[in-house]
Amino acid sequence: MTISRGPQAFPRSEYVRRLAMAKSEMARRDIDALVVSDQHNITYLTGYTAHSGYVPQALVVSMHEEEPTFILRRCDAPAAVHHCFMERDKIIAYPESLIGNPEKDGYDPIIDFLKDSGHANCGIGIELYSLPAQSAEKFRRRLPEARIVDCTKAVTWIRLIKSDLEIEVMREAAAISDAAILRAAEVIRPGVREADAVAEIAGTLIRGVNGKPGTKLATISLCSSPRTGTCHINWSEDVFRAGSQINLELGGTRHGYCAGLMRTYSIGAPSARLRRVHEIQAAGLEAALEAVRPGATCSDVANAFYRTIEKQGLEKETRCGYAHGIGWIEPTASLKGDDMTELKPNMTFHLMLGNWIEEDFGYVSSETFRVTDSGVEVLTTAPRKIFEI
Amino acid sequence: MTISRGPQAFPRSEYVRRLAMAKSEMARRDIDALVVSDQHNITYLTGYTAHSGYVPQALVVSMHEEEPTFILRRCDAPAAVHHCFMERDKIIAYPESLIGNPEKDGYDPIIDFLKDSGHANCGIGIELYSLPAQSAEKFRRRLPEARIVDCTKAVTWIRLIKSDLEIEVMREAAAISDAAILRAAEVIRPGVREADAVAEIAGTLIRGVNGKPGTKLATISLCSSPRTGTCHINWSEDVFRAGSQINLELGGTRHGYCAGLMRTYSIGAPSARLRRVHEIQAAGLEAALEAVRPGATCSDVANAFYRTIEKQGLEKETRCGYAHGIGWIEPTASLKGDDMTELKPNMTFHLMLGNWIEEDFGYVSSETFRVTDSGVEVLTTAPRKIFEI
Repeated sequence: MTISRGPQAFPRSEYVRRLAMAKSEMARRDIDALVVSDQHNITYLTGYTAHSGYVPQALVVSMHEEEPTFILRRCDAPAAVHHCFMERDKIIAYPESLIGNPEKDGYDPIIDFLKDSGHANCGIGIELYSLPAQSAEKFRRRLPEARIVDCTKAVTWIRLIKSDLEIEVMREAAAISDAAILRAAEVIRPGVREADAVAEIAGTLIRGVNGKPGTKLATISLCSSPRTGTCHINWSEDVFRAGSQINLELGGTRHGYCAGLMRTYSIGAPSARLRRVHEIQAAGLEAALEAVRPGATCSDVANAFYRTIEKQGLEKETRCGYAHGIGWIEPTASLKGDDMTELKPNMTFHLMLGNWIEEDFGYVSSETFRVTDSGVEVLTTAPRKIFEI
Repeated sequence: MTISRGPQAFPRSEYVRRLAMAKSEMARRDIDALVVSDQHNITYLTGYTAHSGYVPQALVVSMHEEEPTFILRRCDAPAAVHHCFMERDKIIAYPESLIGNPEKDGYDPIIDFLKDSGHANCGIGIELYSLPAQSAEKFRRRLPEARIVDCTKAVTWIRLIKSDLEIEVMREAAAISDAAILRAAEVIRPGVREADAVAEIAGTLIRGVNGKPGTKLATISLCSSPRTGTCHINWSEDVFRAGSQINLELGGTRHGYCAGLMRTYSIGAPSARLRRVHEIQAAGLEAALEAVRPGATCSDVANAFYRTIEKQGLEKETRCGYAHGIGWIEPTASLKGDDMTELKPNMTFHLMLGNWIEEDFGYVSSETFRVTDSGVEVLTTAPRKIFEI
């Protein structure tokens, strides 16, 4: 018996549009086949969101075929049939004997497919940055007549500008993020274990809002006193205490798309220092958002923030954000002083204003926004305040 | 102000023991420095569990120093001071300007450190499999006088045999897994959205049991009718229905250590086919566990399972399991027919008997076990049955 195609987050025409952009880039680079191994790029081009990327798998986009071919391990092929927009003959399963096999691995059938489909003497793009060093070497060794071209981030850059359909999905994700930030304000209480609060926050992120559940749980960072100078740790085994500050970073997820959101909480009145940092950062946030419009650069947005807070004697060492969408960070454009990427309508960013000022003191705030035809739309809407418990 | 070292999951002596094993392996391979970039190996050697591994970071183990040196981005350094067993001068922060920088990245200061600490002309081990191809090339280019040795999985293999302290942490994780499997039996009901059930299951995994919270949420796979032939998808947007079968894979986590557990649920009486598969698989599970003892091989355990189910006319294509601990799969020993790894006391495995028989029909069951001095201890204890709702 066969599995049927499941409900699709996007219509076929959306994937055809994305593939057309990928093929245009392939033509520009004079390659006939593109081997996409970055799992987020695979999601973008097919709709596949299963978590099978810990073993070799790749999507092969050919200039000569409308649909790409997805090659993955046998036990994950039914999920690909269920998730992907393509016809089932575009899903190729490789045998389970290649898993945990020191002699051959899943990249071998991917290379075999390139040979069998007539690409052995062509230009072939691979994503060097998402391939282990040994596997990249295998492509070169087993395809000696091919012209191997590094196409790291070629598809990732295409993802930077979203379609209206993608924006709608990110709005759904942002609504979930907002709900989780508000839920946190209800469950963070002195004497409560951090884990118990996170369980409730995670519950909101999974249940979702407006009848639309979260489709995955993105990593939650909860950094409370004395850990507010850290940014990427999970909750601790401690309880919240009177006077604790809590920095929270989370993101609702819909169909692989995240909408990051950060807020700071204080049990009891915030210290004068925390209040002052918040006020300066909030002014910087406003200035950054005001700088967002088509034609401005990432640098302009970042510098609007940096200049505003510097006037008040504050600095921020980390970048102000990054392209945002599938899989959280899209490693392309950064909101930083030297990134001259020009903003265009429907680019989406996580304006990430976390500021880890000293080892034992930091403050977080962020918004997920999109560039509009004339300015900015902030997708996240939680109050821009220190949540006082 | 500085951040203090946080509560440690293991005493210093445990890390010194692990490092001694790593250095013994380094001596065997005649290298002076080992660059550990695999995030799970970093957890193993230091206690660090923050989720910063999406940008370059590495632990450098030197034959000439008792403690290793951890080089990571500036904003993550406080978390390293808080998590790691080492003295704070062993934490080196690289500047934030290297993030999202197309010219240089975090591997540059790691290479600088190797040069500055006198390793430019030495044997240097790197983990090729966890390094992007371009970064491995950078090590070779910037260290032309060094003898670069591929040490992929050198530390990973050391992790295979746990200490009694690690086993105790895995017991805690297993108790959380058991509780989550039982919670699932309470919340899976016809008409309930899959997401709402998963929110409750995730809540149990985070809250933990016996006063010990989960310290991270490992990926949950919930594959219900008509998706029981898939293995690695998240919950869907659907509701459970009368007659639905639900395959659940989850794992409690303590201090980075997972204990995987899979069970199958049926809303209403299981079909005759499902019952028969369960009975055969349960017999295979017993046979596999009976084969576990020091001196037996991974192959012996897998073949005990395969031969038992084959006698009843069933086959399983995927391997029967894998070394298990930090970060779920430890990519070393596999419970498969041709893996001749000899079992030794305190090796831990996820005996993973998921069997995806047809595209639209699969069954799951698993246990996390350790090898004892004379046989086996199963760490997970949830009833070995089809949970009938």
